Amino acid sequence: MGNGATDDLVTVERAQGGGPLVLVCDHASNDIPDGFSPLGVPPAVMTTHVAWDPGALAVAQALSAATDSPLVYPRASRLLLDCNRTPDAPGSIVVLSEDTAVPGNRDLPPAERLARVRRIYTPYHAAIDAVIDARLAARLATMVVAIHSFTPVYHGTARPWDIGVLYDHDRRLADLLLAALRADGDIVVGDNEPYAPRDGVYHTLTRHADARGLQSVMIEIRNDRLADAAGQGAWAARLGRHLQQR
Amino acid sequence: MGNGATDDLVTVERAQGGGPLVLVCDHASNDIPDGFSPLGVPPAVMTTHVAWDPGALAVAQALSAATDSPLVYPRASRLLLDCNRTPDAPGSIVVLSEDTAVPGNRDLPPAERLARVRRIYTPYHAAIDAVIDARLAARLATMVVAIHSFTPVYHGTARPWDIGVLYDHDRRLADLLLAALRADGDIVVGDNEPYAPRDGVYHTLTRHADARGLQSVMIEIRNDRLADAAGQGAWAARLGRHLQQR
Repeated sequence: MGNGATDDLVTVERAQGGGPLVLVCDHASNDIPDGFSPLGVPPAVMTTHVAWDPGALAVAQALSAATDSPLVYPRASRLLLDCNRTPDAPGSIVVLSEDTAVPGNRDLPPAERLARVRRIYTPYHAAIDAVIDARLAARLATMVVAIHSFTPVYHGTARPWDIGVLYDHDRRLADLLLAALRADGDIVVGDNEPYAPRDGVYHTLTRHADARGLQSVMIEIRNDRLADAAGQGAWAARLGRHLQQR
Repeated sequence: MGNGATDDLVTVERAQGGGPLVLVCDHASNDIPDGFSPLGVPPAVMTTHVAWDPGALAVAQALSAATDSPLVYPRASRLLLDCNRTPDAPGSIVVLSEDTAVPGNRDLPPAERLARVRRIYTPYHAAIDAVIDARLAARLATMVVAIHSFTPVYHGTARPWDIGVLYDHDRRLADLLLAALRADGDIVVGDNEPYAPRDGVYHTLTRHADARGLQSVMIEIRNDRLADAAGQGAWAARLGRHLQQR
């Protein structure tokens, strides 16, 4: 790609999987890889939703296995750079996340901002593109599904939903998934909750699905439901069942 | 990017250029790089518009130099794979171009189709993305401009335009450029001619500009106007003058 970088901050699992999904997990990791300056965030905070989406990667991996679908995720905390924001958005590299200051992101030199984009953002999105390009070439039908988790309490407010289904202009997949989850009857389902594309959270899917006319949906699971392997597996099984009915 | 390929079929010039444009030249080359099977097209045809856009790269390079703007182009003939079509479009790898059969593309094995996408399409678009990502990180305003050339006679019909300005839903840049070119008074200017986005020719700009909210325009120059360096330089100078007035 002309910039000479050969890094390893993006993982692609089941790149050749013939299943119907391309899974992405923007906030899979709370790692601060070698070569980045410390962020100044307490270690205890680095294990929380402030630094990543706890449990989301395990769900995405189980769903990838259950559906034989590719999965792409970055190995870097969203506090270094949020892959689900455009590189010029205020939310790309934040100085405050909920109530947590990120001193290492304050007055970031342009060269450091650029290095983060080059090492984290660009390879992640290039990997998603490569997976989708190959599937189009092979005439494989493809739906792009983003797996996230959210904190049960945000800025002091409790969130009632077990799962949220988020979508932008293309509602095809979201409408079907919302109906299927509601029919389950045992969970509280959010419709563009706990937030929505107007909050700027649909970037990865806009870039890769909308731009190519592919169906997409963003799934948010409350992270207390994903605290152990049993919970992660159950949610992956539920989603696999509903998404394979398409 | 996980596929292990390190090829060199994409060129980025002035990657760090601070000018206002990102230039792309989808059909810059008539090369058949090592490793691809022969297409079975007569050598004399490989020098014509059937295999590439004659003169377009020279205009793009001169415009890149004049405006200090990055330029990205593939080194492979459109007859191997057209980078300005999605990999699942019929026009991605054609078996007939105008009146020329392309025997080497008939009944192409899926593995060969995939190899072309991996070696040509994916790296080209990844390189454009990397350039734009870095510019967004640096907060550089960016307009994406595609430089093409067209044949004076197509399927027996003469085309009257010296230059065509093509655009899709976002007309901002096209309207300004159309007005400026018409004000020049000495040329015939086409408005979404000799073809238009409805013909599927706007893929590169849809993917990289529309998907990011960036202004874009596709420029087509009749290739008999680009037969020598004087013509190429004059058209680049004209476009540079008009595009830098934005």
